[in-house]
Amino acid sequence: MTTPANTGSALWSAQAHMPSVLGRQLVIARGEGNYVFTTDGQRLFDGTAGLWHANIGHGREEMAEAAAQQMRTLETYHVFGRYLNDRAVELAEKVASLSPIADAKIILNSGGSDSIDVALKLARRYWQLQGRPEKTMILSRDLAYHGLHAYGTSVAGLDFNREGYGTDSLVPDTARFDTHDIEQVRRTVAEIGPHRIAAIIAEPVQGTGGVIPPAPGYLEGLQQIADEHDILLILDEVITGFGRTGHWFAAQRYGIRPHIIAMAKGISSGYSAVGGIIVAPEVWAPFYRTGAPIYRHGTTYSGHATSAALALKNIEIIEREGLLDRVLHLEGVLHAELDALAGDDRIEETRVAGLLGGIQLRPELSAERVTDAMVDEGWIARPLRGNVVQISPPFTTTDDELRGIVAATVSALDVVAADAKADSLAVAR
Amino acid sequence: MTTPANTGSALWSAQAHMPSVLGRQLVIARGEGNYVFTTDGQRLFDGTAGLWHANIGHGREEMAEAAAQQMRTLETYHVFGRYLNDRAVELAEKVASLSPIADAKIILNSGGSDSIDVALKLARRYWQLQGRPEKTMILSRDLAYHGLHAYGTSVAGLDFNREGYGTDSLVPDTARFDTHDIEQVRRTVAEIGPHRIAAIIAEPVQGTGGVIPPAPGYLEGLQQIADEHDILLILDEVITGFGRTGHWFAAQRYGIRPHIIAMAKGISSGYSAVGGIIVAPEVWAPFYRTGAPIYRHGTTYSGHATSAALALKNIEIIEREGLLDRVLHLEGVLHAELDALAGDDRIEETRVAGLLGGIQLRPELSAERVTDAMVDEGWIARPLRGNVVQISPPFTTTDDELRGIVAATVSALDVVAADAKADSLAVAR
Repeated sequence: MTTPANTGSALWSAQAHMPSVLGRQLVIARGEGNYVFTTDGQRLFDGTAGLWHANIGHGREEMAEAAAQQMRTLETYHVFGRYLNDRAVELAEKVASLSPIADAKIILNSGGSDSIDVALKLARRYWQLQGRPEKTMILSRDLAYHGLHAYGTSVAGLDFNREGYGTDSLVPDTARFDTHDIEQVRRTVAEIGPHRIAAIIAEPVQGTGGVIPPAPGYLEGLQQIADEHDILLILDEVITGFGRTGHWFAAQRYGIRPHIIAMAKGISSGYSAVGGIIVAPEVWAPFYRTGAPIYRHGTTYSGHATSAALALKNIEIIEREGLLDRVLHLEGVLHAELDALAGDDRIEETRVAGLLGGIQLRPELSAERVTDAMVDEGWIARPLRGNVVQISPPFTTTDDELRGIVAATVSALDVVAADAKADSLAVAR
Repeated sequence: MTTPANTGSALWSAQAHMPSVLGRQLVIARGEGNYVFTTDGQRLFDGTAGLWHANIGHGREEMAEAAAQQMRTLETYHVFGRYLNDRAVELAEKVASLSPIADAKIILNSGGSDSIDVALKLARRYWQLQGRPEKTMILSRDLAYHGLHAYGTSVAGLDFNREGYGTDSLVPDTARFDTHDIEQVRRTVAEIGPHRIAAIIAEPVQGTGGVIPPAPGYLEGLQQIADEHDILLILDEVITGFGRTGHWFAAQRYGIRPHIIAMAKGISSGYSAVGGIIVAPEVWAPFYRTGAPIYRHGTTYSGHATSAALALKNIEIIEREGLLDRVLHLEGVLHAELDALAGDDRIEETRVAGLLGGIQLRPELSAERVTDAMVDEGWIARPLRGNVVQISPPFTTTDDELRGIVAATVSALDVVAADAKADSLAVAR
């Protein structure tokens, strides 16, 4: 192993195998609506909305104006101790009003990974305060993705994200349960002992794990287990929150009432780094009583005023343009398009929930190669775990664009399948 | 313990004892230069630069324009896998050029707590990859503050930030050592065994711990211990980075060459949520070799294009306005002002490093009461651990403003001391 002569720019990319990406990096320099453009001028349809976040599309003038106006007035002031800023308060009120949790309190921060760490710490802190010190375990689903800070890394159900640090789990007292089988979840909870379990965390629709909608009754089952056993239920709605399933929160779509919701991405459509958690009264109230201890959360940019202004404008746009209904319509289109692929024997399965689509390919056809071939033709998709092609464009996508990216996936499959056949013939010779 | 009828807005403030702050919250709605304004119209001198971050002052038009221009062009595109955006690359190059570490790679994210988690995970991952699986311990200083994500919480030297989660340390394998005595550090390292230690992390000037500059030879001692024993040295420059000590990094002021630097706050002067780490070649190179594993860091807003544009504009302003020299000048003014308080027997000690000042009061005079009294007169200061009043205004502060806030501290001390005397007389009666 030697260091290559060319190690690229000073930027260490995220989740990247650097030796493989150097020399074939795509530098995005402009965005407009559902499209982004590389420095070489290539126009690409953003079929994933970046990392499932660019829900209102790119480069919107109205957002630029909202940012500038807030920055001129007050770029931010922190919300530590006695201090607040008006925009943070306004955003918290707005999020509370949209939330499935009545009388919620909102902790704001700078992204999804932040939200997971603050939620899981809160679950632990809550039970200590309730005089249940043995409740320290956090259970999560196989194939789960909950960000990459230390706590999120520890509860990852995707093993590759948890491994390589010298212990099974950076923060101990974690365990995984089955992604589909609620009876297996019950058995895991019984084996560990509910008296030791602080919280269950789950993405209502698993994202990075390969776009996995919940099995019928599964989320309801998690809620029942949590309620029965004094376990907090935390929904990770970093991807699903703010409309991706056609409702403000997937909790509303599936009729679940969690104790804590983690949010990020869709709250600002990625125009600024903002996230947070929504907390139910039974969890926040003990920290609001006279004599209560402080729950020690606090990031400098908790309640950042410009981030809050951008989130408020984003929510206003989703409301004004009727984008939740638009997502429900697009879900129908996507369903029809993917159902039509049922006869294609190169495809193992397709899955849809809201404007989240996954096309799982047979193992011999690499999803990474397929998405590379798609980019060459102007369509961004993303390979996910399980050899899945991710399709999750902005809510502003047209029906034709959505049909176009499904067609582009099939075309790319043709190219990659032909290459695979040529390769195997070459080997045979 | 009952929940009060008025629990305030939906926003759960940061690091706040909610029952105490409700009813006396200050809502900031406007900022201009070194001043902020409440919704009630009160004008306050920002004597702390918010949370030591608002270094170029508030509400600058030039920053608003930079944000709007970038957002119109491309609010952001992620830097996962093959993807980059031009602004993220530009910021990484700029930071590398200012950094004390030659040939550095830069990981970008959304704030100081993020930077700590990604740095400590990297230290662990690095030693696993080097075939030293037993190197998992992270050592930190007593009184240290390293943010509040799970790993930062675990290495806190301020016990109140680490406590309340049911175990000594959320992420185990941590230990603290003395803040001043390098010989005690050597003994701690020897007791634990250097073969078990992955990294030492330290703020060059401790902030939240009470503005504590390093004892002569202390940082050099940490460097020597790290070099002698194959331990990574991580400097937490979240507060000190980008000029707060009159140099781009405190590492340059004190002549230290760490393996990793964590940064945030000053990189954008708080105009956007951005942070990151600077990584030395010996640490990044193993991840850039053919056959290397991926270092799995990745937050959605790693390399956020608008955040990067704001950081670049902030750095440009610091350069154009000569603000590093301005900080060195203001340090002299602050030193003179605080030295002049030497005879005041209500003050235990004053400390200065760059434009960071701490006034440690005698225990019977509460720093919290003093800073509350200062706010009433239009001056923001902040109480820190150890009954210290924090003074760390923007770099754009005038000499008169800096003298003014020191004078305001003394006036507030008079008020609080008189109240304390009245209280004790009342008790005596």
